Amino acid sequence: MSDYMSAIGRRAKNATKYMNRLGQIEKNEGLRAVAEALREQGSFLMSENEKDVQAAQTAGMSEALVDRLRLTKDRIAGMAEGLDQIAGLDDPVGEMISMKTRPNGLRIGTRRVPLGVIGIIYESRPNVTADAFGLCFKTSNVTVLRGGSDAIHSNQAIVKVIRETLKGQDLPEDAVILVEDTSRAVVSDMMKLHGLIDVLIPRGGAGLIASVVANSTVPVIETGTGNCHVYVDEYADLGMAVDIIENAKTQRLGVCNACESLVIHEKVADEVIPMIYDRLRKKSVEVRGDEQAVRIQDGILAATEEDWSTEYLDSIISVKVVSSIEEAIDHINRNNTGHSEAIITENYDHALQFQDEIDAAAVYVNASTRFTDGFEFGFGAEIGISTQKLHARGPMGLLALTTTKYVIFGNGQIRK
Amino acid sequence: MSDYMSAIGRRAKNATKYMNRLGQIEKNEGLRAVAEALREQGSFLMSENEKDVQAAQTAGMSEALVDRLRLTKDRIAGMAEGLDQIAGLDDPVGEMISMKTRPNGLRIGTRRVPLGVIGIIYESRPNVTADAFGLCFKTSNVTVLRGGSDAIHSNQAIVKVIRETLKGQDLPEDAVILVEDTSRAVVSDMMKLHGLIDVLIPRGGAGLIASVVANSTVPVIETGTGNCHVYVDEYADLGMAVDIIENAKTQRLGVCNACESLVIHEKVADEVIPMIYDRLRKKSVEVRGDEQAVRIQDGILAATEEDWSTEYLDSIISVKVVSSIEEAIDHINRNNTGHSEAIITENYDHALQFQDEIDAAAVYVNASTRFTDGFEFGFGAEIGISTQKLHARGPMGLLALTTTKYVIFGNGQIRK
Repeated sequence: MSDYMSAIGRRAKNATKYMNRLGQIEKNEGLRAVAEALREQGSFLMSENEKDVQAAQTAGMSEALVDRLRLTKDRIAGMAEGLDQIAGLDDPVGEMISMKTRPNGLRIGTRRVPLGVIGIIYESRPNVTADAFGLCFKTSNVTVLRGGSDAIHSNQAIVKVIRETLKGQDLPEDAVILVEDTSRAVVSDMMKLHGLIDVLIPRGGAGLIASVVANSTVPVIETGTGNCHVYVDEYADLGMAVDIIENAKTQRLGVCNACESLVIHEKVADEVIPMIYDRLRKKSVEVRGDEQAVRIQDGILAATEEDWSTEYLDSIISVKVVSSIEEAIDHINRNNTGHSEAIITENYDHALQFQDEIDAAAVYVNASTRFTDGFEFGFGAEIGISTQKLHARGPMGLLALTTTKYVIFGNGQIRK
Repeated sequence: MSDYMSAIGRRAKNATKYMNRLGQIEKNEGLRAVAEALREQGSFLMSENEKDVQAAQTAGMSEALVDRLRLTKDRIAGMAEGLDQIAGLDDPVGEMISMKTRPNGLRIGTRRVPLGVIGIIYESRPNVTADAFGLCFKTSNVTVLRGGSDAIHSNQAIVKVIRETLKGQDLPEDAVILVEDTSRAVVSDMMKLHGLIDVLIPRGGAGLIASVVANSTVPVIETGTGNCHVYVDEYADLGMAVDIIENAKTQRLGVCNACESLVIHEKVADEVIPMIYDRLRKKSVEVRGDEQAVRIQDGILAATEEDWSTEYLDSIISVKVVSSIEEAIDHINRNNTGHSEAIITENYDHALQFQDEIDAAAVYVNASTRFTDGFEFGFGAEIGISTQKLHARGPMGLLALTTTKYVIFGNGQIRK
């Protein structure tokens, strides 16, 4: 363990004490002040960001990735607007969820409290820096941010503006700490800060997440890998099925709740596969299928076993034909990542069976998987989408950044 | 990864499918049938247990530990009674916690569902085997049990009775799987079954828990280490303080919610330390203190730095004198394990400040720390006491063995 990272852990832990004492008004004023400062310092942020953009271009990064990295005036306005919105949300911290009086007179209350220190490990988009700070600050948590080396100048600039603003408001500037050393050794150390960091949230590709899960001694919330399916049941409204599939696959490529794989009941396969193929080809989506799908429709390429478990994040989709809803459910449970799954059916029993038996964070009947998102679910914001079962599952809003504490009021009770 | 352990993981995962389909009536009948079978097969259980007891005695195990290992008629009746009680509790699985209709007409429900496969790694007490099965089965989870080698014959016998009974009731016998190979290599493999086991709960000493946290890729719930404090404020009712301290330290030694360390405000130290010392000496408790405590009371031994962070689980207690409630809170937050902490005070502001600022699962005003327990909190049963912040904190009842799933009812919605 390097002194560098353990010192950051101790600073973060120490700052929780001050965060615990902040009231809602101070926190919301702090968030609005930071939003204002980000707007005012737009030129500074863009000039620092330009260093990252130039380095990325020199290193030959693809234009799509460079674009994710770039801060424009609009994107800075978007970050600021995000903080203003978070300021306007209800604060869950301090809520007493329940209070019971036991037979011995003890009053046992369950109160929502901050998690403490939240570590976020993420890749190139610098707007995550402001978003993550905002959600964690709103819930009285300290954030330790470890962004990618690609965005280091942008992240340093954003965190500098945040910390200076907090200091100017007499708020704890260590509410957000950037890990400026972006070496691999330091990120390994960060994952070992058990007792100083309360939870780690990796945001990025499957490789990053798997590495954090394998190496962290700090509890991890896994987010955002989505091998999502749409199952077209034998009792589906086929027109609805095609509309939903088009939306789930193509409304936005490269997001975790996009549909990557179709499962089609054999009784409707002959009719619906050509309809789906036509619609997706218009959006330039490559279709890969099993033997039956290939037989039904010219132009469908043969899928391999690997296709069933692949999250393409691209203009590709796979198609499998099944002979029963049970086979569909088994196939999906074997290959999915626990994110979002949909059935298209007009059959009551099949709708319920699918919702009962599919093991995923969000199970849809007759709707697009693209709705799995904190804003669409009405949370007002999200820190990510959990694909694990502990603590939080599905889109994580402010509540997912809190825990509970039992507060017990006695008047001398002892245990018999 | 040995084939042995990965095969168990796959069997467990496969059994979740059948568990998901069980209704409350079948589950409760199953639990009651297992309770009855344990009672009927008491002689078999005791004769198998005798093998473990004899092996332990031959190996020179202390009589206290041999006693924890021993199954008597009463203890078997206790295990059976525990299962009957669990059968009588409300089943949280299937409850729809909320259902909201979004502006686009999507109805988004949050339903409680089982975690899936719960791995439990525990030490010598064989009654944990039946308890853990009961709580997990009630919540439709599959349990993979890895008990200590000391209790292997007892655990095999208990699991045999459970599995045979389940089979006889047409219930999935793989609802409980015992890891019969008790080698260290196999327990290491068990911690790597990410994707097959959904959560690991270690139950045992601090060493076991630290090893699981350090090595597991499966999410872990840490339980049951308790370096619990009682703080006697300058505004305490001193008689109440002494009664509570006696209870918290001596009502039962060796449990995680027993008090291990006292913090005393200097304004009352001269008066209350002799009172506490007299009372604890009557129960043969050794008292170790800082310089001021040693000066105040003859017979108090000098504490070392190490004492402040030690969970004695024995007839020893430490005493520290402080000059303010802030110093008390800092000392406790630096040394505690996030379990249970108490303040004794008649001062309103100090009571609230302590509850606000102490970072622990249960924070008491004017009551004994010994109440932190699933039964005392009214949960009817517990699988352990979580000392971490993710997912569950404090005593874990049936709810802690569930997660949620979003079930979404649409009629063709696509995302704009």
